[in-house]
Amino acid sequence: MSTSAKRAVERLDVLYGLGSGRGANRPGGSEVEQQACELAARWMEEAGLEVEWDPAGNVVGRLLGTQPELPEICTGSHLDSVPAGGKFDGALGVVAGLEAVAGAGTRTRTLGVVVFRDEERGCFGSRALVEREPLPGRFVEVHVEQGPVLERAGAPLGVVTGIVGYTRREVVFEGTAGHAGTTPMAARDDALAKAAEFVLRARDAALGIEGAVATVGSLEVDPGAVNVIPGRVRLTLDARAPDAERLDRLLAALGLDPEPRNAPVAMDESMRAVLREEIERLGLPAPEQPSGAGHDAGVLAAAGVETGMLFVRSLNGGASHSPDELTSEEDVALVIEVLAAALRRLAG
Amino acid sequence: MSTSAKRAVERLDVLYGLGSGRGANRPGGSEVEQQACELAARWMEEAGLEVEWDPAGNVVGRLLGTQPELPEICTGSHLDSVPAGGKFDGALGVVAGLEAVAGAGTRTRTLGVVVFRDEERGCFGSRALVEREPLPGRFVEVHVEQGPVLERAGAPLGVVTGIVGYTRREVVFEGTAGHAGTTPMAARDDALAKAAEFVLRARDAALGIEGAVATVGSLEVDPGAVNVIPGRVRLTLDARAPDAERLDRLLAALGLDPEPRNAPVAMDESMRAVLREEIERLGLPAPEQPSGAGHDAGVLAAAGVETGMLFVRSLNGGASHSPDELTSEEDVALVIEVLAAALRRLAG
Repeated sequence: MSTSAKRAVERLDVLYGLGSGRGANRPGGSEVEQQACELAARWMEEAGLEVEWDPAGNVVGRLLGTQPELPEICTGSHLDSVPAGGKFDGALGVVAGLEAVAGAGTRTRTLGVVVFRDEERGCFGSRALVEREPLPGRFVEVHVEQGPVLERAGAPLGVVTGIVGYTRREVVFEGTAGHAGTTPMAARDDALAKAAEFVLRARDAALGIEGAVATVGSLEVDPGAVNVIPGRVRLTLDARAPDAERLDRLLAALGLDPEPRNAPVAMDESMRAVLREEIERLGLPAPEQPSGAGHDAGVLAAAGVETGMLFVRSLNGGASHSPDELTSEEDVALVIEVLAAALRRLAG
Repeated sequence: MSTSAKRAVERLDVLYGLGSGRGANRPGGSEVEQQACELAARWMEEAGLEVEWDPAGNVVGRLLGTQPELPEICTGSHLDSVPAGGKFDGALGVVAGLEAVAGAGTRTRTLGVVVFRDEERGCFGSRALVEREPLPGRFVEVHVEQGPVLERAGAPLGVVTGIVGYTRREVVFEGTAGHAGTTPMAARDDALAKAAEFVLRARDAALGIEGAVATVGSLEVDPGAVNVIPGRVRLTLDARAPDAERLDRLLAALGLDPEPRNAPVAMDESMRAVLREEIERLGLPAPEQPSGAGHDAGVLAAAGVETGMLFVRSLNGGASHSPDELTSEEDVALVIEVLAAALRRLAG
């Protein structure tokens, strides 16, 4: 493994060791997140980058180009984590991004690596950036997949086509509570039976739409007694699809309004092509897939930045937001190599 | 309406007014249950009955027969209630029973009206009675149906064929928790989808077996977050059927063991015939149905007493265990008339 990849892996361990408790504990806005950012800033300086802190606390390290007036080429991700989170979520995109920028060397355009603040709670750092700044030129984010697709495909890296559109709803089913022993089946109006039909309809509708997912994650029964027919059930639906048309179809199949929703965001076609080509240059497959989770890259893409995104294989069935999150050192080395090559090409 | 029926209706109001709070509040073992029993004992004495309190606190009022050495013919029910219960549940069987015994007059055999203690929490009074005493001769209980069958059939009274067999189970479905956005549908192992299939299978299995009911009354999802695929679901099943064979079929259809269960109890054929004939003598239909709830009559029947049971129509869709419980004054008058005739016939 290269010196660069070894350093990245060691830094992931250092970041993972900040905070206390099981797993990564660097919540957005916490002192530990601040420590992680200061550490990253020191690493940037050691690599010869110019460090800037923006008003939102985002950190940018720049390797100035020979024509610094041209739009910049940036990479990066976040250093905050969910409580008891994984070692790679966010952190990999920062440490790999730093190695790739340093490894690309001085190019025509300025290269930058960004640490976005407070991503897990709603991409607050990247949102603040795009609201304040003239849009940067181009952006590539490296992130672990947080799902099982690449592991199942036997592919170390993948190219993200876009961030799915998604919506969260509360759905209530009304019935009539009644005595479990004395109410004949034909006379019942059971709210849980209606809810159960909805759960299966949501599953089947999503199974029938490529790339769509639907999840009933919580369900509460009222009154919830062993010998009382449920009178009311409240459940939540989380529905996602790679594009607006498929999200429309999914919601229509469930009898739900298309709005409110978070619109899907597509990654830039030319950026996707660059990433695919650099992966394939290493003799690797370059599968494409939508991201089912939101990312800083989605915020930048929605703001008009030409954005691409590389997924790195998550092992352990795609476990994420947990200490079970795992990506191999070999895959870390591969993504640094591919990202450095892509940055070199984009920066001229 | 007869003097007898008017008195019964007035006494239901008096009993309903004991205790405090909305609805009937005479929990088993409470001071209010004791007050109700003392009131019933006074009413028995006023009607010329000999009152006996047994060691369990059950009250028996006897109208001695001309051959008191013969086995007795008894009726009765309970005076305890669930919290915020209805006006008729239990109390109707006591006040109607007293009127019927007094109305039947002195016969060959001794007639008795019994107030059983603490029925709602598990028929403790009647259980204590059958464990202690040599078995009494024959018993008839009058009780509100607590279901919608008679109301739908347009029948004031019905004859109970038996107490259903029933079982309560906890069923747990295991799956794999995962990210609602990044786990493709085909890669999921969703515990709630399995539970939803079970809910519908329970409903459909019970719908296919005459007289059977199955209720999933409570269901808990773990971890129960909007964006996490359910990893574990725990639910309760309440399954009942009029006889062992049908309960076997119901449980087998759900992949569950036949035991543990409360065995079904049949009412006595000759007692059913007497009750049917006395109802029909008034020109009324005499539909037969199982009781989906447990009753003191079931305890006596299981102990070998020749037992019959009359259901009185519940209005309001069969509402029970609530202040919405309703039975008409006309139906109260009818059941007193039928019960008195049956007691006369049985007592010779």
